[in-house]
Amino acid sequence: MINRFDPHVVLAALKSVLPPKQSAVALHEPQFRGNELPYVKECIDTGWVSSTGKFVDRFERQLEEYTGVKRAVAVVNGTAALHICLKLSGVEDGDEVLVPTLTFVATANAVTYCKAIPHFIDSEVRTLGVDPFKLEMYLTEIAEVLHEGCFNMQTGRRIKAVIAMHTFGHPVDIEPLVDICNRFKIVLIEDAAESLGSYYKGRHTGSWGLCSALSFNGNKTVTTGGGGAILTNDEDIGKMAKHITTTAKLPHEWAFNHDMIGYNYRMPNINAALGCAQLEQLPGFLERKRALAERYKSTFVEIEDVEFFTEPEFARSNYWLNVLLLNNEDIDIRDMILEKTNSNGIMTRPLWTLMHKLPMFKQYPRMDLSTAENLEKRLINIPSSASLV
Amino acid sequence: MINRFDPHVVLAALKSVLPPKQSAVALHEPQFRGNELPYVKECIDTGWVSSTGKFVDRFERQLEEYTGVKRAVAVVNGTAALHICLKLSGVEDGDEVLVPTLTFVATANAVTYCKAIPHFIDSEVRTLGVDPFKLEMYLTEIAEVLHEGCFNMQTGRRIKAVIAMHTFGHPVDIEPLVDICNRFKIVLIEDAAESLGSYYKGRHTGSWGLCSALSFNGNKTVTTGGGGAILTNDEDIGKMAKHITTTAKLPHEWAFNHDMIGYNYRMPNINAALGCAQLEQLPGFLERKRALAERYKSTFVEIEDVEFFTEPEFARSNYWLNVLLLNNEDIDIRDMILEKTNSNGIMTRPLWTLMHKLPMFKQYPRMDLSTAENLEKRLINIPSSASLV
Repeated sequence: MINRFDPHVVLAALKSVLPPKQSAVALHEPQFRGNELPYVKECIDTGWVSSTGKFVDRFERQLEEYTGVKRAVAVVNGTAALHICLKLSGVEDGDEVLVPTLTFVATANAVTYCKAIPHFIDSEVRTLGVDPFKLEMYLTEIAEVLHEGCFNMQTGRRIKAVIAMHTFGHPVDIEPLVDICNRFKIVLIEDAAESLGSYYKGRHTGSWGLCSALSFNGNKTVTTGGGGAILTNDEDIGKMAKHITTTAKLPHEWAFNHDMIGYNYRMPNINAALGCAQLEQLPGFLERKRALAERYKSTFVEIEDVEFFTEPEFARSNYWLNVLLLNNEDIDIRDMILEKTNSNGIMTRPLWTLMHKLPMFKQYPRMDLSTAENLEKRLINIPSSASLV
Repeated sequence: MINRFDPHVVLAALKSVLPPKQSAVALHEPQFRGNELPYVKECIDTGWVSSTGKFVDRFERQLEEYTGVKRAVAVVNGTAALHICLKLSGVEDGDEVLVPTLTFVATANAVTYCKAIPHFIDSEVRTLGVDPFKLEMYLTEIAEVLHEGCFNMQTGRRIKAVIAMHTFGHPVDIEPLVDICNRFKIVLIEDAAESLGSYYKGRHTGSWGLCSALSFNGNKTVTTGGGGAILTNDEDIGKMAKHITTTAKLPHEWAFNHDMIGYNYRMPNINAALGCAQLEQLPGFLERKRALAERYKSTFVEIEDVEFFTEPEFARSNYWLNVLLLNNEDIDIRDMILEKTNSNGIMTRPLWTLMHKLPMFKQYPRMDLSTAENLEKRLINIPSSASLV
């Protein structure tokens, strides 16, 4: 049966954009054409590969300069960064933290590391991120603002924070979220794991909340092998982020004293060396990723019933992972396209399974999640590496 | 005033053993004279720097072969390995875990990550590790063994596990600990962070407990920049260790499903590449570290009132960090020696501050800790790098 949703149409469109390749086209691959090897060689030659060394400092300063935040603290990965953001925000045992159901599992996992409870909220089609309008309606209905903070009247628990995630690099509508958080006494954390190089009204994502998390996993726009960073404009939070991620050790020539429970989350120098080289190339990566997105846009505009997702008017997106949205809300069609493209050597991916559907999160509170559930049936990620241009 | 404890005596003895150096002599420095650069270059050239790649598998297989355990799982660091060992041992909220007060802070921190309670136990002078005789006496006094496990009659809490740490690489007296754990229904975990290359009665440390933690921090015998591993002889525990440290993702060509709360603890491929090259050189490192220990031994045997710590008869130690024990139990003398050596460019270090003295652990249960407190006043670590021979 041939119909408008013949997966061949999508496969042909992708093939027309992508360069011919011998091997399979990955969803997102890193590129190392700068100073990666010399910097890493310097670590090996000098013996400084581990937890202290000049590249960690340099990487943090480069991140501060690029994002415009006051303090960046490099850590082992984005999950660790999120965990510490929650700690720094004062999230405690039994608190609720508002988390989009449409996110990667790390966002919700990090909440549970604090023995807090993820409370799942819906997204909007325009940004793929938290829907501020719907969130405000919901909080007005279920929450009570007391002197000590915001409380969920249904569960009696404190709602301490919200994690706004910039989905596939596309900025969430953050300004109304800042306003809602202020009015409801909720701390705003940004999960900017995917959005290095993405801006909201000219200001870098990750600089709006009290603190935010970046990721430099191998599939991200720039990579350190494994890595992440905490960003903040609050000097005290920044100092504490460094302290708590380096085992909370007090400085001393030889004595080992620690003044609180700390974590071993520091980024090794050899990974930071890779990061320094990658950040030098970030403007070029972004330019090429943008050019790829333009090509997809002009190709898919011709195809009825498939929409190529583009940044909303207030945002400049890094187009980390490009997104197709099928008009037809039918998971069978989505899966036929996934099957067809992957079996033909072009890697594509559906949305992550929504958090509230995973067995370990099923029992947690949630609002109506109909937009995320709709997006789950319609969304497909397509190859997005800078090297494809 | 000149007396037998004149710190000059110790400084002169160290100088007589150590090679003349322009710069300060570190406590432990890595050496990269093998395949480090070619392996790391391969990661960069192929783009495989991150969470999957051949060096992670190869490093794990090399560790298994070297230590003789069935399964090794590479992770981001020793602290992460300890955290997962506790999870795999079934440690839950409110359990007590027996932890030597004489250890690095990570051992006790990891217990708190599980919302469990560190319960501090004493060490013995012969091994610097847990004193099995004293532990048995103590458990006989405070513990009750029921069908569901071992309970602390004083607190009412379950005592789920003990973490036996091989201090500075010197093996703890593990066989009696295995026996005690069996009789008291307590899970034995080994903190082998410092003891790669150390054996107890011919069997590698870290292979005696249900599972154990290694570290490859920059100051360890072999380093991956930052890194660690979980070792176990239990196939199911090994499978679960891999699963839970890789976000508990279920294998699928494109779908993202996770069946439990997981962690992002996997070791990046670029760090594993370093580790593969380092493990190839481990026998050489151990030989030279042993030769250095021999030199220290024959030098300090001449010095009254200072003892050079040597492996007990049942052990073959990696001599990770060499240890001097002052006969005089006087913290002022210890500090004079630390001052004199460090100010003369030879790095030395006292014991870590004992865990029960740190502010965040002060309120936790403990047995009599007089041996550890005695060791704290007498112990000094001295330079131990393989490169010093």
